[in-house]
Amino acid sequence: MTSNDYNSDRLILVCNDDGIFAPGIRSLAEVAGEFGEVVIIAPDRQQSAVGHSITVSDPLRVTPFQINAKIGGHSVNGTPADCIKLGHSKLLNRKPDIVLSGINHGSNAGINIIYSGTVSAATEATILGYPAIAISCTEFSETADLSGSREATRRAIRYVLKNGLPSGITLNLNVPGGPLKGIRWAKQANSRYIESFEGRVDPHNKPYFWITGRLEILDDGDNLDLNVLKMGYASITPIQYDLTAHLFYNRQNGDLE
Amino acid sequence: MTSNDYNSDRLILVCNDDGIFAPGIRSLAEVAGEFGEVVIIAPDRQQSAVGHSITVSDPLRVTPFQINAKIGGHSVNGTPADCIKLGHSKLLNRKPDIVLSGINHGSNAGINIIYSGTVSAATEATILGYPAIAISCTEFSETADLSGSREATRRAIRYVLKNGLPSGITLNLNVPGGPLKGIRWAKQANSRYIESFEGRVDPHNKPYFWITGRLEILDDGDNLDLNVLKMGYASITPIQYDLTAHLFYNRQNGDLE
Repeated sequence: MTSNDYNSDRLILVCNDDGIFAPGIRSLAEVAGEFGEVVIIAPDRQQSAVGHSITVSDPLRVTPFQINAKIGGHSVNGTPADCIKLGHSKLLNRKPDIVLSGINHGSNAGINIIYSGTVSAATEATILGYPAIAISCTEFSETADLSGSREATRRAIRYVLKNGLPSGITLNLNVPGGPLKGIRWAKQANSRYIESFEGRVDPHNKPYFWITGRLEILDDGDNLDLNVLKMGYASITPIQYDLTAHLFYNRQNGDLE
Repeated sequence: MTSNDYNSDRLILVCNDDGIFAPGIRSLAEVAGEFGEVVIIAPDRQQSAVGHSITVSDPLRVTPFQINAKIGGHSVNGTPADCIKLGHSKLLNRKPDIVLSGINHGSNAGINIIYSGTVSAATEATILGYPAIAISCTEFSETADLSGSREATRRAIRYVLKNGLPSGITLNLNVPGGPLKGIRWAKQANSRYIESFEGRVDPHNKPYFWITGRLEILDDGDNLDLNVLKMGYASITPIQYDLTAHLFYNRQNGDLE
C-alpha cells in the first residue's frame, strides 16, 4: 500500500458482472482499499454478457455481506446496472468519489464492450454523474495472474483522482494476465464475432444450441484496443454512451418523406 | 398494400424484445409482408430492458411457429441479439435483405437506447452486415393505435431499400401513438432516469424493491429524439456502436503512466 494514496474520507463503490464470489472483485476491492473506504454492491451470481440490462419485471432483493473486516457490502439478485442504480438511490448514505467495475475474468475490448455487464456498470455510474472505470483481465481463468490488472487499476485510479473525467466519459481498461508491461490509450476496435452455434440433442431427444465464436478485427491500427492487447500492453479506452452517428445525421435534412 | 413495394425475392427478418405474442411484432410482420417474404425469429417471451445481452451460459431452444399462412418463423428462449445471431448462422437459408425489430411497446429514445432489447436486435444485425431498423411506439399499451408506427415503418423501409445504409449504421425509429404527423431526423437526447426504488415487504416479511423512474432530458434542441416526439412527430436517429469518445481520446498521449 502506498500510504500517499489513502484518504479515509474517500468512498469507492465496487461492482462487477461475475458476481460477489469471483476472485476478480476481491482483488479489485483490495486495490480500491488502498485509496479509501470500499463498499461492494454487486450481483449475487454470474451475470456475464447481460449487456446494459436493468430488471423491471422482477423484484430486487438486497443482501448484506462481509468478506473480512475491511471488505463488505450488498449483493443484489439483479444486473450490474441495477446494482449501481440501487447504490445511487437507496443503499449508499453518501456519494461515492469513484466507481470501479471488475476485475472481469475475460476481455471487454472491441465489440465485447456492447455485450459487457462489467462495462455497463461503469457506464451507468457515468450516466449518474460519477467518475467510473471498468477493468477486465483478458484471461478467462479464475486463477489468472491479476498482478498486472491490479497495478493498471492503481494507475488508472490515480489518473482519475488527479485529472477527473469529463462528464459522460467512462474509462474501459483491459489488461493481459501476468505483470504489467504498460498502459496505452486506445480506441475500440471495429470487430465482430464469427459465430457458430453447436447443435446438440438433450437426453429427452430435443435439440438445443450452444453459442460459440471467435472475434475478428475489421480494421487496422496499433491504437486499437484489441491490437494493443495483442502487443502485450494494457489498453485504456475512453468511451461514451451517445450512440448517434453524427456524420450520417449531419448529411440528412430535417424530415424523412 | 402498395403493389410497387412488393418483391417476392426479398427476404425480411423480423425480431423484437416483447416476444412473439406481442401485437407490435404482428403489426410489423404485416407491414414487412408488403415488401417481401417475412421470417420472424424472436424471443418466446417478454425480454424488455435486456440491453445487448447474449446467452452464453444456457442452451438455446428454437421452436417453429406459424401465425397464419403468410406469417411464421421461429421462437427462441433467448434474447433479441441471440435471435439475430441464430438467424444469421443457423436458421435462415439465405441472407435477409433487411432486418426489422419491433414494433416495441414503449419508447426507445434518449438514454433508453442503451437499455433496449429492440434496438440491440437491430444493432446486432448491423454488426453482421445487414441494413436494420428498430421501431418503437411511444405508448406502452398493447392496445395502442399503431397506425402511425406502421406508416412510419413503411417509409423507413422504402428509404433503406432506395438509399441503403452505410456500414455500421442502424436506424432507430420512434413513433407516437395514433396517425403519423411526419418523421424527423433526430439525435439521441442526452438524458437519464431519475430513479426511485419502491421498497415493499413480501408475505414472508422479507424486503424487496421495484425500480421506477422518470426520464430527464439534460440538453436542449428541437433536433433531439425525445423533443421531436414531444412535438408529436416520429423521430429517426442514425446510431452506431463505436463507443470510443474520440475527442477525449485525441487529447491523450500514447501511454498512461
